[in-house]
Amino acid sequence: MSPAVNRQILLASRPHGEPVPENFQLVESPMPVPVPGQVLVKTLYLSLDPYQRGRMSGSEKSYVPPIPVGGVMQAETVGEVVESTDPRFAVGDAVIGYAGWQEFAAVPAGALRKLDPSAAPLSWNLGVLGMPGLTAWVGLLDPGAPKPGETVVVGAATGAVGAIVGQIAKIHGCRVVGIAGGAAKCAIAREEFGFDECVDHKAPGLAENLRAACPNGVDVYFENVGGELFRAVLPLFNLHARIPVCGLIAHYNETALPEGPDFTPAVMREILVKRLRVQGFLVMDSFPKYPEFIGQMAGWLREGRVKYREDVTPGLENAPAEMIGLLKGKNVGKKVIQVGTQGAAI
Amino acid sequence: MSPAVNRQILLASRPHGEPVPENFQLVESPMPVPVPGQVLVKTLYLSLDPYQRGRMSGSEKSYVPPIPVGGVMQAETVGEVVESTDPRFAVGDAVIGYAGWQEFAAVPAGALRKLDPSAAPLSWNLGVLGMPGLTAWVGLLDPGAPKPGETVVVGAATGAVGAIVGQIAKIHGCRVVGIAGGAAKCAIAREEFGFDECVDHKAPGLAENLRAACPNGVDVYFENVGGELFRAVLPLFNLHARIPVCGLIAHYNETALPEGPDFTPAVMREILVKRLRVQGFLVMDSFPKYPEFIGQMAGWLREGRVKYREDVTPGLENAPAEMIGLLKGKNVGKKVIQVGTQGAAI
Repeated sequence: MSPAVNRQILLASRPHGEPVPENFQLVESPMPVPVPGQVLVKTLYLSLDPYQRGRMSGSEKSYVPPIPVGGVMQAETVGEVVESTDPRFAVGDAVIGYAGWQEFAAVPAGALRKLDPSAAPLSWNLGVLGMPGLTAWVGLLDPGAPKPGETVVVGAATGAVGAIVGQIAKIHGCRVVGIAGGAAKCAIAREEFGFDECVDHKAPGLAENLRAACPNGVDVYFENVGGELFRAVLPLFNLHARIPVCGLIAHYNETALPEGPDFTPAVMREILVKRLRVQGFLVMDSFPKYPEFIGQMAGWLREGRVKYREDVTPGLENAPAEMIGLLKGKNVGKKVIQVGTQGAAI
Repeated sequence: MSPAVNRQILLASRPHGEPVPENFQLVESPMPVPVPGQVLVKTLYLSLDPYQRGRMSGSEKSYVPPIPVGGVMQAETVGEVVESTDPRFAVGDAVIGYAGWQEFAAVPAGALRKLDPSAAPLSWNLGVLGMPGLTAWVGLLDPGAPKPGETVVVGAATGAVGAIVGQIAKIHGCRVVGIAGGAAKCAIAREEFGFDECVDHKAPGLAENLRAACPNGVDVYFENVGGELFRAVLPLFNLHARIPVCGLIAHYNETALPEGPDFTPAVMREILVKRLRVQGFLVMDSFPKYPEFIGQMAGWLREGRVKYREDVTPGLENAPAEMIGLLKGKNVGKKVIQVGTQGAAI
């Protein structure tokens, strides 16, 4: 019944700067066989997220260990149970876990969670109903603490997290200004996601354009980009503004600190004079809040108050190119690779 | 009864970088005459504080307007009422207010607060019982939120604020590591103020020495210096560490951003990965907490749990040189200029 091989994508070498196709290797491995306590899962969708770039590097400290060279690329995945040694999972069950960039994986049953396929498209559990959705929700509402009438700025405005941040901020009565790369993305942020304004960071005059889009200053900046965007927002903060730090995609491919001058004193000065609160957060600290989140988010989706856009590419073999593209802002919406088809014979 | 003249120190010109004596001018002005609603105050002590450097600059935005060129240098002062048009103040009363760098001032009665001379030496109201004490107390306990057993690091460890931060942290059960300039100051921090360790930032190997002094990492860094000290602390933060940003004395004399590389991405990365909370604060936002503060601090002083050290220089004419010195770390303890003598004929 099982095919002879399991296609996997390995980390062939660590990238220096931007990942290149040679950092990845597609291999055919023997089909995994679940030992007692494990479940054999067929991958349906795998999630591509900027944080995965950090795990490809070996030298930098991060919040989780790096992927070993020669190891399977890691990712959150939605899959289908094809063989189970655990009474909690039956063949055909839809599950979410961290099976990585491969067609099949033998996963400890305790590391899987069953999904309800009737509640929403299964892939949404990798986005608006999953880790990116929770990231947006907890980061905006907790360290961001937006109040009605305040101005919220978010970068990567059509990305998996940014688009949701903006829509939750709108629900909370804020004026929402996105920043995105290109006029097409900005149009989507405004027209599809309901942002009040969106500033194209690829057009000249980012700082001036952002200032014009924020006539009342900035009360919350949801930081998921860094670099030039942060410098453009910095002079616009109102007293007691909040900056949840969620990610820094502009820096993930950097191999050294940028050239000077050193802006740190200017940043610290704004923090002092404006009494800013800059707060790093990681979604993994907030997993206990998932039930509360999912209750709210499912309601907003049902009521049409949150719109969700996926950018799905079929074929495991396309994951490397799509990951490289993600780090350059090629995607529009949540990037997902469709690896297999539900219910199809394996 | 009044002398013919009032000696004042004016801001003669704005400093470019380090203030120089030529930025100040000692003048003899006519004795001020209080109009109805004003009180004529003889200055006994004036407070020198790093924040005053910011008010000498015209171009930079700060949290208060700059001193105009030709205007009297601003400072908090303790004085004695010599003439009053307001029933709340009588001749001989000790008062605190913002009379500036001058021997006499006619001050609106509403801008003065009466002091109890029997409670503590009058000058202490400019330090441990006043603005610097409240700054240390509110900044450490509010955004700093120290817990027993945690490691608290504070720079300018023998300064007006740093010495008090460290002692309050000790009272709250923390391990306290100071940073100060020179072995003599470090000895004072340890022996007089009870710090567990103090690292000399003028000795070679600041980063290594600080790491050795913080074997369990850093949970709270009370930031009142910036620059090299901040970079030395940055790699030592524990998860969820807090950084109250109180001041940046290392940068106050800078005329441009430092040379590169730009450390901002490294700072933001630590904020993200360690989930740091960096929080600017200004004491003026916390004046309503003054009664609570003074109750605790007066008790600690009475019980000998907080030691207080002043660095008093007599003579208004010495204020410029002492201000220049303060910005270079010349003082040990709270810097105060004694301008006049209590009860003496004017």
